[in-house]
This record gives sequence, structure tokens and C-alpha cells, in this order.
Amino acid sequence: MAIKAVVFDVYGTLCDIRSVEPLIDIEFPGQGEFIAGIWRMKQLEYTWLRSMMGRYENFWTITRDALTFTLTSLGLETDTESFNRIVEKYNDLDLYPDTKPALRSLSQFQLAILSNGSSIMLQMLSKNTGLDYLIGQTISVDSEQVFKPDPRTYSLVEKRLGLSSHEVLFVSSNGFDISGAKSYGFNTVRIDRVTEEKSHPTSTDTKFLEPSKMFAILRARVENIGFGPDYVVNLLTDLPEIVSAAVAEQ
Amino acid sequence: MAIKAVVFDVYGTLCDIRSVEPLIDIEFPGQGEFIAGIWRMKQLEYTWLRSMMGRYENFWTITRDALTFTLTSLGLETDTESFNRIVEKYNDLDLYPDTKPALRSLSQFQLAILSNGSSIMLQMLSKNTGLDYLIGQTISVDSEQVFKPDPRTYSLVEKRLGLSSHEVLFVSSNGFDISGAKSYGFNTVRIDRVTEEKSHPTSTDTKFLEPSKMFAILRARVENIGFGPDYVVNLLTDLPEIVSAAVAEQ
Repeated sequence: MAIKAVVFDVYGTLCDIRSVEPLIDIEFPGQGEFIAGIWRMKQLEYTWLRSMMGRYENFWTITRDALTFTLTSLGLETDTESFNRIVEKYNDLDLYPDTKPALRSLSQFQLAILSNGSSIMLQMLSKNTGLDYLIGQTISVDSEQVFKPDPRTYSLVEKRLGLSSHEVLFVSSNGFDISGAKSYGFNTVRIDRVTEEKSHPTSTDTKFLEPSKMFAILRARVENIGFGPDYVVNLLTDLPEIVSAAVAEQ
Repeated sequence: MAIKAVVFDVYGTLCDIRSVEPLIDIEFPGQGEFIAGIWRMKQLEYTWLRSMMGRYENFWTITRDALTFTLTSLGLETDTESFNRIVEKYNDLDLYPDTKPALRSLSQFQLAILSNGSSIMLQMLSKNTGLDYLIGQTISVDSEQVFKPDPRTYSLVEKRLGLSSHEVLFVSSNGFDISGAKSYGFNTVRIDRVTEEKSHPTSTDTKFLEPSKMFAILRARVENIGFGPDYVVNLLTDLPEIVSAAVAEQ
């Protein structure tokens, strides 16, 4: 059997990035989902643009810059304290219910995180959520000064775990991350955190759209840029079965 | 005076990418604006992701892939002929009303295009719109096999025009393009094709949002990643005045 390590993305894969929404709702009642959606889109865009421009700033700076853009763009204002309270939730995001059971069921493998998050963000998040007890290695893209899906980020897994790419099963909910990991040479599993049904608009949606549906439309599917996932699951607890299937195919 | 050339982005700057909407409306009544918005967002994302992954495909392929993603994601279907009719509008986009007057008023400068479009797309678009009579050089990123805002794309301007970056005034409506051009070293002008007022949501927007407003929120402002524009204009015909101001400051 070739698979020796299962490596996880964090934001949207192990941790629910939408758990920032209630905190935003306190500051801007009824707008949490909407603001969080724009914020996430800008956060990702800024990782890609800064990588391409060769102007790396770490994910903490980018996360703050993206929230500032979002609030400014919406004509909203807040004080520093409230702003910080919202951003700092990124260091204590809720885990999805399937995260811990899945990690426990995979204890015979090397388990690792590969994340855009800065080393300090990941350290705090792992400690606050208890992920540090379940996952051996936490790898930040920080040391490469570039974000996913740049191949240099995925190469960190091989270096840190001392494995070859074909020995790695990489798990992410993010379509671009799956494309990048597959293009690099990993075995890939997409965890489908937004079901496709949710992304299909009704006839009224084309005029006025629920923000969550917009984000679902943009993010619910595998990207059409080649290098799709080898497997798709709806729950991380399906992973042991996937690993068995991967073995059977080899 | 240092400025010797005025270099333009094309899509959204000289040519109205929203002019695809009526063609989409024929195939999918009432959904042109909505589909075009998602399509454009995915098109840009795919240029960034493929650049980072080192998996370049030209802008024609990406534009088609992004439309396929959009229609699939919305659960919509169309035949090849209609699909092609929509995509081929990219080779004959409408010019903004201020485009030709502005180009004529700048005839004392070297005028050039620097675009993500493939060489063939730009050749067809220039011919179909008459831009070929007004602009001397049309530079595609094709030869560098990477898209904006990678600095290698902007370096093509210096190579092809035989100028230094400080002799170039670069004009774009796209925030990421301004950041990239400024980071590279060009003098930059942002043409504001979506006014900020349009992007401010009303109180009802946070529950149900007009798709056009969503795109305005995401695209109407300068990006918060540093390297902002030196100047901002609402019409390209304001450019001669900007050039004079640039001279006065030097």
C-alpha cells in the first residue's frame, strides 16, 4: 500500500470558516453571511494576486486587508476592537462535526496540515481547537513566501514528512487547492462542504440572489481547470473507506 | 517630460465586457447579467490559478472553460452553436463611448495594448472594433505563458516599445491590474468603470442581492493589496489632462 500520510487543508476543510458569521452579526445585524462571503472571496484573491506579484504578506495580514476591503466597499465602519474580535475568530474557528472522529479513525497514518495560514495562526488554531492532539505536523506556506496552488507549497509536504508525492493523500474542500495538489502529484480527495443542490438557483434567483447561493455557485464544484480530485466525499469520516479503495486500485 | 507611451488594458478598459449580456439573454432570458458576472469572475480566477500552477492555457481556452463552469454550476445547458456564439462575442466586444475619442486625443504618444487576450483574440478584436487604426502595438501575454499581474507580463511593454517603466502610463479599470502595473514600476491610471455609489448595498441587499451589485462590490474599488493607482479618472477622455498633471509633477 502506497498511502503513508493523509494531509489536510484547514480553512473550509477541517475548520468551518463560516463560524465567523455570528460574530459579524453582532456588529452588523443580519449581514454576517453576506460580509463573510465577500471577505472570503477577497481573502483568496489576495493570496493569489500577491503570490503572482511576488509581494508576499502572510495570511494574517491578508485576512485583515480583505476584511478592511469588504467593510469599506460596503460603506460600513467599525472600531478597532470589534474589527479585531471578528478577525481573531480565525484563530479559534469551529471544527466541523466530522473532523475529530475522522482524524481519530486515521491514526495509523501520518497526519498533517498544509495551510495558507501563518505559522502563528496555525499554532493558535491547533491549540484552541485541540487539533494539536490529533495531528502530528502543521505545515504553513510561510517558509515559501507564496500561497496555494503554487507547487512550492505542496513540495513542503514531501520535505517535512520525508515522503514522495504518491504516498500522500491530500484532502481539501477548496477546488483550487485540489487542482494544485493534483497537478503537483498528490492523490486527492475533495470533501464537498457545499452540496451542489444548494448552488442551483431557482427562477427568481437570477434577479435577486441570496448571497450564500452566489458563493455556493462559485465554490461548490470542482474547478474546470483540469487536475480534478481522485475521490469525492461528503464527510471526512468516509476517508478510511477511500484509503481502502485506493489500496485496492494499486 | 517622461511619459512616452500610454498603454491600455482591453477587457473592461477599452472594451465593454458586459456587451456579452444581450447575447446570453437570447439563450437564457433575463439571466445575461447574472451569468456574465459569474463567468467573468471565474475567467479571472482561472488566469490566476493556472499562472500559479504553471499550467498555462491561453485566454480563449480559459474563457471557454469559465463559461462551461458557469453554465454547469447553474444547472444550465446549451448547444455548441449557441455556446460558440456567446464566446465569440469576445472577439467583437463593444467599445466604451469614450474609447475612440480618448485614443485620438493621445495621438502624440506611442499607444499600445497589453492584454491577457491571446494574440489571435486581440487581432480579431482590434480589427472588428477598428482599434487597429488607433493603436500601434498590441501585446498579448501569450509569449510569456503567464497572466497579469505576473511582472513578466508588464515587462513585455518595455521590451516591445523600447522604453523604461517610468516612461509608461498604464491605464486599466481592473484593480488587480493596477496593483500589478504599479508594483512593476509603471505610472498608473485607474479608469473607474463602476462607480462606488453603485456598489453600496441598501438595507434589503444583505438578504437578497442584485447580482450586478455583488460584482460591483467585489470590483468597484482599488484593491487593498498596496500599489494603488497614481491617478483615477471616470472617462478615458480625461487622460490628456492626467498626462499634463504628470508632467507638472516632474
